Amino acid sequence: MKIIEGGVVAAKGFYASGVHCGIRKNKTKKDLALIYSEKKASTASVYTTNKVKGAPLTVTKENISDGYAQAVICNSGNANTCNADGIEVAKSTCDALASVLKINSNDVVVASTGVIGQPLDITPIVNAIPALVDSLSKDEKASKDAAEGIMTTDTRLKEIAVSFEVGGVECKIGGIAKGSGMIHPNMATMLVFITTDAKIAPEMLQKALSSDIKNTFNMVSVDGDTSTNDMVTVMANGMADNAIIDSEGEDFDAFMKALNTVTVYLCRRIAADGEGATKLLECEVSGAKDEQNAKIIAKSIICSSLVKAAMFGSDANWGRILCAIGYSGADVDVNRVDVFFKSSKGEILVCENGAGVDFSEEIAKEILLEDEITIVVKLGDGNACATSWGCDLTYDYVKINGDYRT
Amino acid sequence: MKIIEGGVVAAKGFYASGVHCGIRKNKTKKDLALIYSEKKASTASVYTTNKVKGAPLTVTKENISDGYAQAVICNSGNANTCNADGIEVAKSTCDALASVLKINSNDVVVASTGVIGQPLDITPIVNAIPALVDSLSKDEKASKDAAEGIMTTDTRLKEIAVSFEVGGVECKIGGIAKGSGMIHPNMATMLVFITTDAKIAPEMLQKALSSDIKNTFNMVSVDGDTSTNDMVTVMANGMADNAIIDSEGEDFDAFMKALNTVTVYLCRRIAADGEGATKLLECEVSGAKDEQNAKIIAKSIICSSLVKAAMFGSDANWGRILCAIGYSGADVDVNRVDVFFKSSKGEILVCENGAGVDFSEEIAKEILLEDEITIVVKLGDGNACATSWGCDLTYDYVKINGDYRT
Repeated sequence: MKIIEGGVVAAKGFYASGVHCGIRKNKTKKDLALIYSEKKASTASVYTTNKVKGAPLTVTKENISDGYAQAVICNSGNANTCNADGIEVAKSTCDALASVLKINSNDVVVASTGVIGQPLDITPIVNAIPALVDSLSKDEKASKDAAEGIMTTDTRLKEIAVSFEVGGVECKIGGIAKGSGMIHPNMATMLVFITTDAKIAPEMLQKALSSDIKNTFNMVSVDGDTSTNDMVTVMANGMADNAIIDSEGEDFDAFMKALNTVTVYLCRRIAADGEGATKLLECEVSGAKDEQNAKIIAKSIICSSLVKAAMFGSDANWGRILCAIGYSGADVDVNRVDVFFKSSKGEILVCENGAGVDFSEEIAKEILLEDEITIVVKLGDGNACATSWGCDLTYDYVKINGDYRT
Repeated sequence: MKIIEGGVVAAKGFYASGVHCGIRKNKTKKDLALIYSEKKASTASVYTTNKVKGAPLTVTKENISDGYAQAVICNSGNANTCNADGIEVAKSTCDALASVLKINSNDVVVASTGVIGQPLDITPIVNAIPALVDSLSKDEKASKDAAEGIMTTDTRLKEIAVSFEVGGVECKIGGIAKGSGMIHPNMATMLVFITTDAKIAPEMLQKALSSDIKNTFNMVSVDGDTSTNDMVTVMANGMADNAIIDSEGEDFDAFMKALNTVTVYLCRRIAADGEGATKLLECEVSGAKDEQNAKIIAKSIICSSLVKAAMFGSDANWGRILCAIGYSGADVDVNRVDVFFKSSKGEILVCENGAGVDFSEEIAKEILLEDEITIVVKLGDGNACATSWGCDLTYDYVKINGDYRT
């Protein structure tokens, strides 16, 4: 496997574009993105578990119920959620795009992110679609344009692509993501679009994605709030021409591994660019009784406001980690817990068998001043492990989310 | 029922004191508190559900297993948690106090709050006990001294007392509390001590307390972190000489009502004085299918970092409230949710049947600029209701919890 350039246009037959259509007032910020596949692609998707769901999710779910799609259109600046005409607007967007692309309206994945509870005016979108389609390209910049089009308060563009082999045939997979941002008056939202030219049956693609997110996107937390518009979609157009992956086995495993490389990278980028974040936090739990308990503990630690605030202050405050394990609800013997802090500057043991050990505060501080911190938790209960990703809690998180809407 | 002065010494036969013993470096801050009853008192307690528990909780649980106690000793500045010698230190504290008070060591309730994972030196406590006992008093100031002795980063002293009648006999009940504070390197911690001269059997006292906290202390959240040292203890010495409450009925109900007045007041004070808080948030949920669903929703809203940050900014961001309802896991029809913001400045409807309504941002802002905000959520699912308490998320929360330990 090899990291390559190109993001969502790295794979054969995929094109992308991004423009400013006018939903956002800032004319320098793209607010509409398009991804298009020459051929209809196997398509799989996972959605937020929030009962309040954006209208685009409902329309997308219906459109890809046959397992196929050919294009993704996504706007930022308005989530099209909690609006009476939401479904109608989402459907009309698909229709407008389909007529210009000359594809079936049912083959469009539609997504929105931004303010909720404010009607989405479809006019700027419809007006921009011809230019959006005209600018479709396989240039590296095209993926970046699309990635920018879906960003909200993200400070950094998130894209990746890798090449890998399926039965000796080279395939490519790439993705773009927007992470936790909030706009007038929005909430943390995650959108991920992944494209691949691997040939894989829709049901195996859905199986791969549904299995993968349990250990990736479902293990990311910025502030514990689950958005109404979260969506992860994968399109596989088969143009690499490998023998079709239609069952489990070596080829499926190779695909899963490549998918996982893309998703883990994007998870880490989403966490590191959480609202106001100055640090990526990674929590590695091992020695758990079973995977479920490992995950409960990893998530409890990464979600603790007190742990997150301590990491912002580069404070080796292991008591808060033990505390978060204690209230997690996991089946765990707290008297057998070891805790380490780790970064590129080294690793330090701070708690052994549930009690503090003598450690150098200076070395701990040096380790914790880095941008990427790993909290290593070793339990003495078994062999299961889990990893979660998050970020520190900072003044800027409060500033971004507490400022008056103006 | 009538609000009266005196806090924990309002009830007959109760005395209190507070001193600086030296656990804390700041000599102007009391760090040791004592409450004493002339007569052995029926005693009930509830404890944190965190699996990591402070040693004092274990010792207290054992001491009051017979349903009785006569004194409470509590230090601040060190939580005596995650220490190898924790149980020994807690027991020795009881012994030292008992020998000076000439009571049984098994009749002492012991509590600690502060830094965890650092050995608690018992010497300053033992040395201070004679002075602590000498200064026991029924003066109003005595309750305040004790209240100050248990404070950590609390900015305001929390005490209340009320008089009420049980079968025509006047009884008194009062309490002190410490709320969410953190010290080098501690976590949010809640301690509440309540005294009453009502005559009530230990099992009925425990029943009253266990039932009450479900709707009071269990509905308070400052940052979602559950401390290792939370404890609520009630002592009832019977000196009001009412007919003993040993079963349910009118007298038990009168007691429950008085207890609830004390606990709700302390809940609101703890929430309002949450770390860094500038506002008390109250969330009233009604129209739920059942109480369980009402509580899940009320807690989900009060715990949402995004809602808390919006309230800090006096931003009528109702989308975040709907979002928190949606991911709460409650059985709820999100299309029938109405949301209002309320304060002493008035009330405003911002969301009806799950969708936004036109409302005046100016009036909403005026309402939300107040110190005490109520988020009113009306569901259309049934008749159950619940109330939760919390506070806004502010720069100071991050500052208090993110600063380097020094």
